[in-house]
Amino acid sequence: MPNPFFKNHGPLKISDILQTLNLKSDKTYSNVNVNDIKDLITSNKNDITFFHSKKYKELANSTKASFCITNENLKEILPDTCTPVIVKNVLLATSTVTAKFYPSAINDNFDSTANFIDKTIFKDKVKFGHNVLIGDNVSIGSNCMIGHNTIIERNVSIGDNCAIGSNSIIRNTLIGNNVKILDNCVIGKHGFGFFPDKRTNVRYPHIGMVIIEDNCEIGCSSTIDRGSMSNTIIGKNTYLDNQIHVAHNVKIGENCIIAGQVGIAGSTILGKNIKIGGQAGISGHLKIGDNVDIAGGSGVIRDVPDNSKVMGYPAKNIRDFLKENK
Amino acid sequence: MPNPFFKNHGPLKISDILQTLNLKSDKTYSNVNVNDIKDLITSNKNDITFFHSKKYKELANSTKASFCITNENLKEILPDTCTPVIVKNVLLATSTVTAKFYPSAINDNFDSTANFIDKTIFKDKVKFGHNVLIGDNVSIGSNCMIGHNTIIERNVSIGDNCAIGSNSIIRNTLIGNNVKILDNCVIGKHGFGFFPDKRTNVRYPHIGMVIIEDNCEIGCSSTIDRGSMSNTIIGKNTYLDNQIHVAHNVKIGENCIIAGQVGIAGSTILGKNIKIGGQAGISGHLKIGDNVDIAGGSGVIRDVPDNSKVMGYPAKNIRDFLKENK
Amino acid sequence: MPNPFFKNHGPLKISDILQTLNLKSDKTYSNVNVNDIKDLITSNKNDITFFHSKKYKELANSTKASFCITNENLKEILPDTCTPVIVKNVLLATSTVTAKFYPSAINDNFDSTANFIDKTIFKDKVKFGHNVLIGDNVSIGSNCMIGHNTIIERNVSIGDNCAIGSNSIIRNTLIGNNVKILDNCVIGKHGFGFFPDKRTNVRYPHIGMVIIEDNCEIGCSSTIDRGSMSNTIIGKNTYLDNQIHVAHNVKIGENCIIAGQVGIAGSTILGKNIKIGGQAGISGHLKIGDNVDIAGGSGVIRDVPDNSKVMGYPAKNIRDFLKENK
Repeated sequence: MPNPFFKNHGPLKISDILQTLNLKSDKTYSNVNVNDIKDLITSNKNDITFFHSKKYKELANSTKASFCITNENLKEILPDTCTPVIVKNVLLATSTVTAKFYPSAINDNFDSTANFIDKTIFKDKVKFGHNVLIGDNVSIGSNCMIGHNTIIERNVSIGDNCAIGSNSIIRNTLIGNNVKILDNCVIGKHGFGFFPDKRTNVRYPHIGMVIIEDNCEIGCSSTIDRGSMSNTIIGKNTYLDNQIHVAHNVKIGENCIIAGQVGIAGSTILGKNIKIGGQAGISGHLKIGDNVDIAGGSGVIRDVPDNSKVMGYPAKNIRDFLKENK
Repeated sequence: MPNPFFKNHGPLKISDILQTLNLKSDKTYSNVNVNDIKDLITSNKNDITFFHSKKYKELANSTKASFCITNENLKEILPDTCTPVIVKNVLLATSTVTAKFYPSAINDNFDSTANFIDKTIFKDKVKFGHNVLIGDNVSIGSNCMIGHNTIIERNVSIGDNCAIGSNSIIRNTLIGNNVKILDNCVIGKHGFGFFPDKRTNVRYPHIGMVIIEDNCEIGCSSTIDRGSMSNTIIGKNTYLDNQIHVAHNVKIGENCIIAGQVGIAGSTILGKNIKIGGQAGISGHLKIGDNVDIAGGSGVIRDVPDNSKVMGYPAKNIRDFLKENK
Repeated sequence: MPNPFFKNHGPLKISDILQTLNLKSDKTYSNVNVNDIKDLITSNKNDITFFHSKKYKELANSTKASFCITNENLKEILPDTCTPVIVKNVLLATSTVTAKFYPSAINDNFDSTANFIDKTIFKDKVKFGHNVLIGDNVSIGSNCMIGHNTIIERNVSIGDNCAIGSNSIIRNTLIGNNVKILDNCVIGKHGFGFFPDKRTNVRYPHIGMVIIEDNCEIGCSSTIDRGSMSNTIIGKNTYLDNQIHVAHNVKIGENCIIAGQVGIAGSTILGKNIKIGGQAGISGHLKIGDNVDIAGGSGVIRDVPDNSKVMGYPAKNIRDFLKENK
């Protein structure tokens, strides 16, 4: 699937890409056109990918990409069909190349294409409040309503029977059917991702989106950031309370119930039927299984297996925690 | 007192109510008109109430309601004047019946009755910013001001000398005199209450309101949800800092001081003269006494008696906590 | 430097100031004009200052102020050039006098001077969205953009190349160059500072401002309060994620990285190159050194020396914490 929201400026010549990284290209392939930059799994022939940690060894070994940004230590793991592009800082180089394919995915300045809804094609189709703005590349299904002062910025698709509240801001987001997004939310902005640099930090592009599946509800004053290379996903029939923060690349399964002021850090993957109590926090890059209960106030810093109940900081088995803390 | 905000569609025939629950009614009473659905204490003759936990045994035993939704195990506790309505899931049935009396209390879609304030009777009475909207059934006292882009949705009563900030949204709320509500708040939306269902969660009605008493201040970006069957109350001269979340049915006493990012879960009752440090969280259905100090960052999961100072997660006596954590 | 934002109603006669405090003045100095109220360090001849805690003994001993609000126990520490003004409650009296010099610094009512940007001098200079409002005493550099519904209230200076998002509210703030402020932020409001009083709390003036230095980024739905007597400062190239709360008088050094939902309580001073994980909280009046790492979810209640890594609640050395919590 091509990226539905960010315009891909490819194909780019591999020699141009290498030049951006201050690398020279070999004559044998310098004229090859590269279509896109993708992760190890989804990339195809004539794409470029990246490989920065042994954790992804098996994925790297079977990637279909023609080129891969990596380092000296990892290059041997790639298959013969994939030419390594050797750099010192794999993630920084990946960011540089991604920005070349998707220059519009770095900054999240306000959407100047947004116009008053009564001057758009949605005028008669949508029930809307005062001062509603709609940007470019927006689609809205039947029987939807959008509250006062809400801004549907560019690149948003809304299904049928959705109710968006007032004072909310949405961009780069796919919304299913029967979804409610309450007031004062900000959804689809880039995540908190950049390369620290003492002169001035360098933001990396966020070419992912937010996907909110059918029947979800998102509480007031919540923020959900879009993904960097992959998407941020809220599964079917999952309910979020007020003041929740969901960071980039997080994937939440279906039928989850998440209470107020919870925060989920970047790239963590949650299963289905999970309950999370108020103010709990979950660290980044974790895997939380199905049917897990996380007590309010907990701080989860390790993976949690299916069917567990955890509590505490760091979160552990809830019975152990309560026994130790009578 | 009749519900000031939600229109009661009663009286309803008991036979119609039972039919909604797929129950048959006895001829001896099938023609009785039921006026309202209320809790065990406030209901009167010809009202219907509900009783789902032994915890409320004494209240049930002295209820004045003519009908009570309950289960096989609890029905004997009711007085002879109260006919039991036996169901499997008391709360789900209560929700269904409440929705029949108050159909407008389920959804919190944006208030389409809201109009620009300069087209309302408040035009010359209130000092207001740009783009201020006012819904139906709003009253505003003397010497009030309302900031830019703020939406006073339907069912709001504001006393004298109140200052509402900018970008805030208020509905179903009674506000006393000399109250300040700062910017970006959302007050009076339904709470996070629903019956989980793997196909699609079923929201229950919130027929309560938010009551903010005299001299209170509510900090920026705070959210206060209205009650489901009872009200959410902020007592006289209580000050809330920024980014605070107060869930449905919470009652906070007078002269409390609550620092930033605190969260109070549903139905918890706090006394007066309480101080709560930043980011503390309080679980639902607890009772916190008068003159209690809760240290910043604490997680309170049990009742706290009057005049206590607590800290930690779970919160305990502050001296014990600090001794154990030198 | 005179206060750039709040109009100083001085000079005031010392006899008038003393009368406000229900004190009598000595004939030898009752006609002296007092220019301003400042802290112990920055006050000069013919200023009045305040001294309420032995902690500031050395500063008090070398103050240049002509008058100092203090109490019986502390008055001897002042130099001969400084006449003590003896009161029972130093901070309350200081607040009363500050309010006399700066009456406009107590209330944060909405800015009624704010007007649509296309009616201001910024019309052709700034790229702006719909419904943008600009108050009095605002300056904006070159190449800036301001998103929809954002309110730049009075007393804001914005440097070059800044991008302000949508639905944000800013007042009493100095913003450097290349700064990004994302959506739904509230910056520059008074802090959570008042004298508790069971009848009605008494707010004290906030005559400080917020200073956001070059290259900073402030995430969505964050709140940064201005200082009371000093300023709230976000140092150069420091990045804040979403839903962060920075209280009054906090000073954050340069090159810090602060993740989502962090809260920093009043008057705490953070060094440079600090990393703070999500949901961590830092108590007020602390000193956090340079190059410190604070793990997500931590509650910091004591000073942290340079180059430390801490975790837990209360936060301690991270290795000790993890060893004790395997």
